[in-house]
Amino acid sequence: MIKEGEWVLLWRNSRSNYLVKAGKNRFNTDCGYLDLEQLKGREFGREFFTHTKNKFYLLKPSLECVVMRGFKRRTQIIYPKDAAFIISKAGIFSGSRVLETGTGSGAMTAFLAAAVMPEGKVYSYERNPDFYANACNNLASAGLLDYVVIKNKEVKQGFDEEAVDFVMLDIPAPWELLGPVCRALKKGRKLASILPTVNQAERFVLDLEAKGFVNIEVFELWARRMLFRQGRSRPEQLMHSHTGYLIFAAKVFVS
Amino acid sequence: MIKEGEWVLLWRNSRSNYLVKAGKNRFNTDCGYLDLEQLKGREFGREFFTHTKNKFYLLKPSLECVVMRGFKRRTQIIYPKDAAFIISKAGIFSGSRVLETGTGSGAMTAFLAAAVMPEGKVYSYERNPDFYANACNNLASAGLLDYVVIKNKEVKQGFDEEAVDFVMLDIPAPWELLGPVCRALKKGRKLASILPTVNQAERFVLDLEAKGFVNIEVFELWARRMLFRQGRSRPEQLMHSHTGYLIFAAKVFVS
Amino acid sequence: MIKEGEWVLLWRNSRSNYLVKAGKNRFNTDCGYLDLEQLKGREFGREFFTHTKNKFYLLKPSLECVVMRGFKRRTQIIYPKDAAFIISKAGIFSGSRVLETGTGSGAMTAFLAAAVMPEGKVYSYERNPDFYANACNNLASAGLLDYVVIKNKEVKQGFDEEAVDFVMLDIPAPWELLGPVCRALKKGRKLASILPTVNQAERFVLDLEAKGFVNIEVFELWARRMLFRQGRSRPEQLMHSHTGYLIFAAKVFVS
Amino acid sequence: MIKEGEWVLLWRNSRSNYLVKAGKNRFNTDCGYLDLEQLKGREFGREFFTHTKNKFYLLKPSLECVVMRGFKRRTQIIYPKDAAFIISKAGIFSGSRVLETGTGSGAMTAFLAAAVMPEGKVYSYERNPDFYANACNNLASAGLLDYVVIKNKEVKQGFDEEAVDFVMLDIPAPWELLGPVCRALKKGRKLASILPTVNQAERFVLDLEAKGFVNIEVFELWARRMLFRQGRSRPEQLMHSHTGYLIFAAKVFVS
Repeated sequence: MIKEGEWVLLWRNSRSNYLVKAGKNRFNTDCGYLDLEQLKGREFGREFFTHTKNKFYLLKPSLECVVMRGFKRRTQIIYPKDAAFIISKAGIFSGSRVLETGTGSGAMTAFLAAAVMPEGKVYSYERNPDFYANACNNLASAGLLDYVVIKNKEVKQGFDEEAVDFVMLDIPAPWELLGPVCRALKKGRKLASILPTVNQAERFVLDLEAKGFVNIEVFELWARRMLFRQGRSRPEQLMHSHTGYLIFAAKVFVS
Repeated sequence: MIKEGEWVLLWRNSRSNYLVKAGKNRFNTDCGYLDLEQLKGREFGREFFTHTKNKFYLLKPSLECVVMRGFKRRTQIIYPKDAAFIISKAGIFSGSRVLETGTGSGAMTAFLAAAVMPEGKVYSYERNPDFYANACNNLASAGLLDYVVIKNKEVKQGFDEEAVDFVMLDIPAPWELLGPVCRALKKGRKLASILPTVNQAERFVLDLEAKGFVNIEVFELWARRMLFRQGRSRPEQLMHSHTGYLIFAAKVFVS
Repeated sequence: MIKEGEWVLLWRNSRSNYLVKAGKNRFNTDCGYLDLEQLKGREFGREFFTHTKNKFYLLKPSLECVVMRGFKRRTQIIYPKDAAFIISKAGIFSGSRVLETGTGSGAMTAFLAAAVMPEGKVYSYERNPDFYANACNNLASAGLLDYVVIKNKEVKQGFDEEAVDFVMLDIPAPWELLGPVCRALKKGRKLASILPTVNQAERFVLDLEAKGFVNIEVFELWARRMLFRQGRSRPEQLMHSHTGYLIFAAKVFVS
Repeated sequence: MIKEGEWVLLWRNSRSNYLVKAGKNRFNTDCGYLDLEQLKGREFGREFFTHTKNKFYLLKPSLECVVMRGFKRRTQIIYPKDAAFIISKAGIFSGSRVLETGTGSGAMTAFLAAAVMPEGKVYSYERNPDFYANACNNLASAGLLDYVVIKNKEVKQGFDEEAVDFVMLDIPAPWELLGPVCRALKKGRKLASILPTVNQAERFVLDLEAKGFVNIEVFELWARRMLFRQGRSRPEQLMHSHTGYLIFAAKVFVS
């Protein structure tokens, strides 16, 4: 049963679909409007009709759908393909304790929170008050606030947490925080970062090596959509050819 | 503290590293042997020396490392990049109930189990008794048996479970199981499959459409490693250019 | 010295550049107009100023620039990256005799003509009178008419030429012409085709095999632009992820 | 008719094929030997049998086949996909005059020679006497010596030629030769280079900008093979994911 405030993906077809929240407003689609009040109490997977009798289906959106289409953006956000790859490499699970900076719009925070819930926690630092407030709203709207602690402060002086299982550095100059990261991260565990330019990636890798980090890996990840249609199947003609360099490294005890 | 039977990634450098289990045996590396008995009680991130005084670090391996390097393979296994992407699209979390067939070597089962633990469960079907036994061993070795129920039986007659949150079809002809899938999967939720050939992918997509599934998506995913070294940074020269077509679809109520 | 009717690439920067013909008209840029009459007699590589004193350089455009930006399009045209790859595989040179169908807008015809000039010839068939007339104009504007014979006719009954060195099939159902191709192509030489869907590509490959063709190869080709800027170098963020499947096969004597 | 010394591609299937020269020796295949003397006077496209009656076809190899499989390598050589793209961008044709350094094994030299023959000429500089001798042999074996002038000397002091249509810089530090290049290249025309690392590519691009070159472009190019087989069609599973960064720039008059 769909509840007040729950996200619903209204699906007519691949060109006409909308992410909405069950609530009070009227919502306009490209083929008629509908009343979001009436979504409440409906069942996922059922039909729902606009005032002009056009049929939509009520789909349960995945978190990546909510993040990409429901989150308000004040910053560039991480792509789900990259977030999924990072979490897979991170070695985190339900119960893990994770550090992140900066929170940005809370996209990566949301994916991390979903990975460590219900017992774990994400501690996320964001110095910009507007970004901070927006990220809090986004995470609340995704129902993930119980699993995150967002802090509106600088990391410069260090993280408040110790012995965390993973650190995600989503800032332009992650090398500046290697001191605090080393104090907060458990030995034998990983940090990750995503950086848009080769210069940042090279700088970070060389600094990680100099600081004694090991198992340093960098990846680019591409996803290309395929369109299958009877006798006319082909790849999509445009794709995202660069989102960022994904960087991983493990901290060890350096004597 | 490393415990008996725990996986440890022995790391010297990117060409010399080994996934081992803390236990009874002696282990040979390319630069001396070491005693796996002595790993017990050590701390992750610390140094460990072979009999010839070569230094390794004790790293906590991620699940993908355990699956790729520790699992015994009786079948082709899914790549972590693909598994991570599927789980991200699947809309599953701690507490979700998931169906899978076939279990194969248990690689995807392990990733699914890690995503739904500790409250959720993966019900995985494998008809081949040898694959079944091997997958059970692999999942036990990864410490994930509490979160999976592996069944050594055919799905033809249908799944035993109802109202699951996600179905993973890792079999060559997933279209043959759409009936049982429709009965077991919650409305508004997704199934996924990974298929190696364009013919299988096309066949499955067209069958999904014919059966009324919606939000059908197909992706190829590529990961390319970058090698950063002072003044000599470049992409790797060979990469996996095809693992499979990742297919997703949502079930709706068809009147 | 730039001559009447010669193509010139007016270059200010990567966002502001224009392909024009030295001739009679006034030409408007995003930063002032200029008189195309005055291009005549100038030297390539020199500066040229708009009426508002903005500086452009006069560059000699490559053929691919003329085809992509100067040719009038009545049809989808081949991308230069694909045309270059095809010509490299084709085994043709100055003096080769080449068949092509259909001419379309004349893009591939132009690249083939440039490869076989001055002694060779491209015989290109186009049944659509409008496409034919447009292609003739395009090839004239590129100065390549001496090296092509464009024919406004169907191939169904066969090609007029014999013993050609290469055949380019740029039509949706190239398998329908394998009979005429076999009669016209020298033994031991190649044909090529570019097809947008996997279904067409599969059909063509299987028909080629059935007809006894050998050395059958299919490729996809991708080009990604890199943007190098001091300390901010990165790949471009969008790219063409599919233009077509490039198919090659060699004809042999089948007894 | 196949002549003494002519290259022939002996084709049985995609796993069993050999590039040979019609000549004196006996040649061993994986399914019997054959007498290369007997190739002479045969027709391309015809069958040819080993002493154990296994059938091969006599195919006319393309230049890229001769370069990749027939050239003796003393250096890393350029891939045909990259060479074809460069020549397409270069704006050269039959009759063009081209400079190249270094010759290396003569692979790029061969592709350039094929593009400018019969009236044009490639002037190629190679300081290493062994590479020089090897490249001369390779180009002779490809029948291209009439269209190249290979010089066993350093470029440091400048090129002997003036007003050339294109310059190809296949050396590790092309920025060191921008002075000589500027003196030898026609204004409004292009140079190209291929460099393996991002550091070299960045350095070269920034130097080109500083020296006033315009229309600077950098590309990576990938080719993925598709395997089409009845009902089992799929992409190849491994591919070359990096050969080099292809760099282009146009020279203008800098006052």
